[in-house]
Amino acid sequence: MSSGYTVFDGSATVARRRTTTEQRILEAAAAALVGGTRFSDLTVETVLELAGVSRSSFYKFFADKAALVQRLAEPSIGEAAQASTDWWHGTPASSWRGLAATVARMLTIGRANSDLWQAYFDAAAADPDVDEALRGAMESHAEMVAQRISALQEEELATSELQPIHLARFMIRTTLTSLVDHLQHGDRDADEAITRTLGRSLWFGVFGH
Amino acid sequence: MSSGYTVFDGSATVARRRTTTEQRILEAAAAALVGGTRFSDLTVETVLELAGVSRSSFYKFFADKAALVQRLAEPSIGEAAQASTDWWHGTPASSWRGLAATVARMLTIGRANSDLWQAYFDAAAADPDVDEALRGAMESHAEMVAQRISALQEEELATSELQPIHLARFMIRTTLTSLVDHLQHGDRDADEAITRTLGRSLWFGVFGH
Repeated sequence: MSSGYTVFDGSATVARRRTTTEQRILEAAAAALVGGTRFSDLTVETVLELAGVSRSSFYKFFADKAALVQRLAEPSIGEAAQASTDWWHGTPASSWRGLAATVARMLTIGRANSDLWQAYFDAAAADPDVDEALRGAMESHAEMVAQRISALQEEELATSELQPIHLARFMIRTTLTSLVDHLQHGDRDADEAITRTLGRSLWFGVFGH
Repeated sequence: MSSGYTVFDGSATVARRRTTTEQRILEAAAAALVGGTRFSDLTVETVLELAGVSRSSFYKFFADKAALVQRLAEPSIGEAAQASTDWWHGTPASSWRGLAATVARMLTIGRANSDLWQAYFDAAAADPDVDEALRGAMESHAEMVAQRISALQEEELATSELQPIHLARFMIRTTLTSLVDHLQHGDRDADEAITRTLGRSLWFGVFGH
């Protein structure tokens, strides 16, 4: 499985049984998605069959298939967000090439998890709760980025012509939609051109003046 | 109707009858969408009832509801694309404020047609033919923009560190997804901050060095 998904393995027996059932469900759903099943075609029934668990066990762990897909995608989305956090807490003003490298790292994570990411965005489009969770995660990341931009404005490194929170939201949404679009429709040969375009353009949006 | 949709009014009687039926179908669909019906809930039956036309008449003009929605949205999408074309053929290098003003103009067009735009993007997500048409329109606009960027590179005004076609696609996709996201989820009070952020950031991505 290329999802990179891991779950906590409890040491108590009851906790272990629970974790194992939960993990089997997660792995079955990931296998179906990686095998080409779209979120809209994924059913709880298919997951039950693949995992060999009962319906009542499923609902002990997940409210519905959208919640399941959200759990599957969150670790790798979190990993991509961490790459952004690391860059912002380093020396972001030094060069656009650092941002391009960070975007390239995100693309690598996204490609290793592209079916899960696609299913997560499909789930968000179909389910208001998942959409709210995704928007909440983006907004909390935007708040961190906005704080860094404010600090860089005080050092007169970042442009003072834009409000940090709007610039932060713009950068996050643009990075995410560009990467997802490229993973879905783009050509792998264009990886370098895409990450360079994204990294350089976004960098000059903050540090160009 | 705020769709801004107009159709050619033929002068021959047969042409006029045809145009009138077609126009009634278009206006009925536009009214349903502007009245809050989502693309997924729009049915050909509803449109037939509202327009007072027969099923066979409908299929004389439109292959399906996706084709109908595409026809409804294209004029205003074309108007927004024209605002971009005008800016690129003016003096784009002079200031980021010109691009912010152009984005503001697109937002005004988008807001007057937001239900049609939303339905069009929903149709593209649901129907591969509409998706291909939308991508084709974006690609042909990108080719025009890339030509202008090439010319501006030769004048040493635009950055030479990026390939024009990748930069053009990035700008177009970013503008469209940002505006659609703002129309769907954003606050009208943020209009000025959004168009300023978008215009300034994208401008520095091309002209910053």
